Amino acid sequence: MSERVIINDVGPRDGLQNQPKILSVVERLELIRALQAANVEHIEFGAFVSPKAVPAMAGSDDIIKMMQGERGELSALIPNRRGYDLAVEAGTKTVAMVAYGSEGMAQKNVRMSRAEADNATLQIIEQAKRDRVKVIATIATAFECPFDGPTDAGVVAETTAKFLEAGVSSVVIADTIGAANPGQVKSLMTRLVSDNGARQLACHFHDTRALGMANVFAGLETGIRRFDASISGLGGCPFAPGATGNIATEDTVMMLHQMGFETGIDLDKLIRASDLAEQLTGTAPGGRSKPWLKPFLERQNEKQNART
Amino acid sequence: MSERVIINDVGPRDGLQNQPKILSVVERLELIRALQAANVEHIEFGAFVSPKAVPAMAGSDDIIKMMQGERGELSALIPNRRGYDLAVEAGTKTVAMVAYGSEGMAQKNVRMSRAEADNATLQIIEQAKRDRVKVIATIATAFECPFDGPTDAGVVAETTAKFLEAGVSSVVIADTIGAANPGQVKSLMTRLVSDNGARQLACHFHDTRALGMANVFAGLETGIRRFDASISGLGGCPFAPGATGNIATEDTVMMLHQMGFETGIDLDKLIRASDLAEQLTGTAPGGRSKPWLKPFLERQNEKQNART
Repeated sequence: MSERVIINDVGPRDGLQNQPKILSVVERLELIRALQAANVEHIEFGAFVSPKAVPAMAGSDDIIKMMQGERGELSALIPNRRGYDLAVEAGTKTVAMVAYGSEGMAQKNVRMSRAEADNATLQIIEQAKRDRVKVIATIATAFECPFDGPTDAGVVAETTAKFLEAGVSSVVIADTIGAANPGQVKSLMTRLVSDNGARQLACHFHDTRALGMANVFAGLETGIRRFDASISGLGGCPFAPGATGNIATEDTVMMLHQMGFETGIDLDKLIRASDLAEQLTGTAPGGRSKPWLKPFLERQNEKQNART
Repeated sequence: MSERVIINDVGPRDGLQNQPKILSVVERLELIRALQAANVEHIEFGAFVSPKAVPAMAGSDDIIKMMQGERGELSALIPNRRGYDLAVEAGTKTVAMVAYGSEGMAQKNVRMSRAEADNATLQIIEQAKRDRVKVIATIATAFECPFDGPTDAGVVAETTAKFLEAGVSSVVIADTIGAANPGQVKSLMTRLVSDNGARQLACHFHDTRALGMANVFAGLETGIRRFDASISGLGGCPFAPGATGNIATEDTVMMLHQMGFETGIDLDKLIRASDLAEQLTGTAPGGRSKPWLKPFLERQNEKQNART
């Protein structure tokens, strides 16, 4: 029996928000539908933020309204209580809040101290419990901050424990700028898993320094079984100097399947979702395994068609 | 005290042989000198093969003649006894022979059975002992073969032990087509290290499916402290469908340094060698970390210059 790994595709939010072209609600929904067609059941579908500040995420309420009652975990990023109210009003059942491993990034990103950002998340968690809404808490710059340097593992450990105790559904340990190395991932995640177990922990990596898949493997080694990834490697971070795209969902799923893990995802249809992302945005890089993966899957399909 | 990892740069041979442009002896020597300037002490400098069949490696005798008495391990690929004689006559102190983990690749590459290829290597080892020449034995398709599928780990384990017993200086476990995943690397290398210790073992990875650095990390986890890599990711495999470039030396060194390993290599000068590879070949992909690494190193240098 093979072990299950959850992939949370953040392409429709983290990805689309951090690339130049603004897609229409219809196009964003088309991308989400393509992911669902590939059996991706965990999707960050949008954000409830100011449409003036972040036009790429405008109309996220329309998106979730069209997906009411659908299976899977459809989450939306919310920056604050106002975003929470809008998200829940529109029918969102899972919200995602961002906290910080470093002061520098908290200040730069939300003009708050780390502690203030933590408290904002804790207040959302309290309200969400009353509303039976799930909360995913992401700890940004959990490994390194472009402003403060390497992050204190103790701070991340304390923050993680605090959020879990408060009742989040999962804590995502995020390498926001793609600066983590697999040795560091192994060390931090071993500590967090030892403190809290692996079930409610996840990792979020970028491929800036070519270490995305190495970091996923390091996370797997410590027992982590949930990862954020972005279809076609869409994404980046506008506030983080030097950050490039998220790890590509297709690369991650391919590695997991090769290693014998189960994701429930149809890799062939996932490649079609990746093609769609490239087509819609014009700049999606495409998973780095795609040049190899596409002819491989095509040959497989030809063989199957020849048989039937 | 940090641990030492040896990087054997195979760019001037494995890399240059498997890209379209044929460089002159002077250009190849320029690339080797750039690697030496970055303190890369293990370099596969050329091959003693038919200049008609492999024009890219013609004049390897001139290259080694110009490097007599220099420090470091300068190795040449040899396909057979004739190549061995030419290499040693020109002054080569380390030769590299290729054996096979699979029948399909042995047949395709050298029209021999696996056993015949093994015996050819064993005969070279015997002669090399008499001549006090070092032998590196590479086991190609040690993880998967494009013709035979997954490779039998038992075959790789037997072949490795046989070569070590015969007296090679190291055995390189090669993922010739970039099909290995880190789980498989960990499993095979754990077995080989348990049988033979890590000191004389090395790994050789390609980045075809985006898993190059993940596989290096998996190798490190089992105790492996020697890796082949290719400056600027030069390379591929003409006989292996779907194979793309070797892992880039600059990506590998960057990861190792970030993890606290010592390589002795000057990353700043290594980037200059990578730039030179791109300039000379016109097609070298450049390490995937380079877009990030170059501005990072430039900022560091500016700071140092400002201080002095």
